[in-house]
Amino acid sequence: MCNSPEYTIHSHHHHFGWDNSIEPVRTVAPGTTVEFECIDSSGGQLTPESTIADMAAFDFDKINPVTGPIVVDGAEPGDALKITIGEFKPSGFGWTANIPGFGLLADQFEEPALNIWSYDKGSLEPALFGEHGRVPLKPFAGTIGNALAEPGHHSVVPPRRVGGNLDIRDLSAGTVLYLPVEVAGALFSVGDTHAAQGDGEVCGTAIESPMNAVLTFELEKAANLRMPRFTTPGPVTRHLDVKGYEVTTGVGADLMEGARAAVSQMVDLLAARHKLAPVDAYMLCSVCGDLRISEIVDQPNWVVSFYFPRTVFE
Amino acid sequence: MCNSPEYTIHSHHHHFGWDNSIEPVRTVAPGTTVEFECIDSSGGQLTPESTIADMAAFDFDKINPVTGPIVVDGAEPGDALKITIGEFKPSGFGWTANIPGFGLLADQFEEPALNIWSYDKGSLEPALFGEHGRVPLKPFAGTIGNALAEPGHHSVVPPRRVGGNLDIRDLSAGTVLYLPVEVAGALFSVGDTHAAQGDGEVCGTAIESPMNAVLTFELEKAANLRMPRFTTPGPVTRHLDVKGYEVTTGVGADLMEGARAAVSQMVDLLAARHKLAPVDAYMLCSVCGDLRISEIVDQPNWVVSFYFPRTVFE
Repeated sequence: MCNSPEYTIHSHHHHFGWDNSIEPVRTVAPGTTVEFECIDSSGGQLTPESTIADMAAFDFDKINPVTGPIVVDGAEPGDALKITIGEFKPSGFGWTANIPGFGLLADQFEEPALNIWSYDKGSLEPALFGEHGRVPLKPFAGTIGNALAEPGHHSVVPPRRVGGNLDIRDLSAGTVLYLPVEVAGALFSVGDTHAAQGDGEVCGTAIESPMNAVLTFELEKAANLRMPRFTTPGPVTRHLDVKGYEVTTGVGADLMEGARAAVSQMVDLLAARHKLAPVDAYMLCSVCGDLRISEIVDQPNWVVSFYFPRTVFE
Repeated sequence: MCNSPEYTIHSHHHHFGWDNSIEPVRTVAPGTTVEFECIDSSGGQLTPESTIADMAAFDFDKINPVTGPIVVDGAEPGDALKITIGEFKPSGFGWTANIPGFGLLADQFEEPALNIWSYDKGSLEPALFGEHGRVPLKPFAGTIGNALAEPGHHSVVPPRRVGGNLDIRDLSAGTVLYLPVEVAGALFSVGDTHAAQGDGEVCGTAIESPMNAVLTFELEKAANLRMPRFTTPGPVTRHLDVKGYEVTTGVGADLMEGARAAVSQMVDLLAARHKLAPVDAYMLCSVCGDLRISEIVDQPNWVVSFYFPRTVFE
């Protein structure tokens, strides 16, 4: 399924934010497979030895570096860049943090928190959390995108129609992703690799983990995509679903408030049942729990549900 | 897994909307298993012989009847009603409609449309849609709830913290549901049974299908639940996920607009690829495609994704 890379883009070729004036590292022909060395989203500021004290010195100008950009020869505005996600080569180290001011429940979790993960990069067996938690892993790239047509520097934080910080858990090995092209050559970059994340990434971070990504590039000429789309080669939640789910709901007239209610109730449930600090339950929700919209049509109230996989504790 | 019912609540014991002054049909002790005959959400107005012409005569005062209410002895405000969903006994007939003014893309689909389904109620093999579509089935009750404390009549359409028209696809056989109790006895009713639905129920209807539901009632005293929660006994999407998914995304600052963008793009994709009328693609999305929130933290843009199961056409 995975082609051998013809080129490696090394991690020193990284940039912060998107800007279509950044000098490309390399030009590749359609059909080329490239390996990217991706730095973690702290930009290397957090290491296996880091403690919560290191978060006070965190430099936010260095977050979320992406490796690239590369030019895909012949890509033009209106085309779609077709990216076959071949393989990830994880590092075995990861971190999850609650960063004050960031995250779905930022108003409820105002203090920093940090969890350092160690996982087996060969077997990708579930990673241990606390005394009893076991979190299934599925590596993917959180930030994957093309440069915007609009000149100047653009923050890396929000995703856009050309991709970027999409944080879509299923952009994992085997998935084929189509991204709108806005500038000649596409100017593609990738980074922010995650060893695991739930749908929503509710605390704002996943298992943030440096790793290499092997990607193959093709072009769909004049595809005129509005926004990113992708095709998965098979099931997407079987690493999580085997024991079923605990599910909390948020019922009301606002989807954001519904999501907040559902996650908040799951934090309370997990904290009480498994004797976790609430912030640990919150970070655990972020790395393996899924936000789904159960109904969005029964006016005026919608239902957002948060699915926590029972396999983590059973 | 499924206890034998001690009582049957027949479908002539139904009501429209919620009102805690409705006379209960029966009082049952905690631990009792009850079978409910559920009318479809048209209140019997649509039949296997119905055509789109019948929709013009649709009487909206008769939609979504629920069977009940029953009193669970000893239930008090603050308790949770624990409902073990034992079994559904489907009828083999179903319908899906686009009802003008109702549904996530009501502004794009202003004309009525109707699809009549016939499925094997014994095998529950995927139901045929058009020439090539095969929709996996998983029966559940769309409307399941307790009476509200607030006196008077309340529309059946919106779900509330006591449940009601939750339309949660995974309230299927084997799931254990916990609903807040607001009035003595709980005053539980159920209806709006569906043979299949995707997360979101995006066109506003599922495979609407009359069937019986077998439920066992218990009480969790003083549970003080904020909103419904449930536990699934195992995986929830294996009937859909075997071939993977086609996925479209909505990237932007509003979750509702993101959901609309994702679904709208999937309608376009399915209509083009499978030569479907757009309204047929829209109804198909409603019965088997899933709305998920991929990320909800990368300010100011969120990602809502719509997952359409490839098994339907492959």
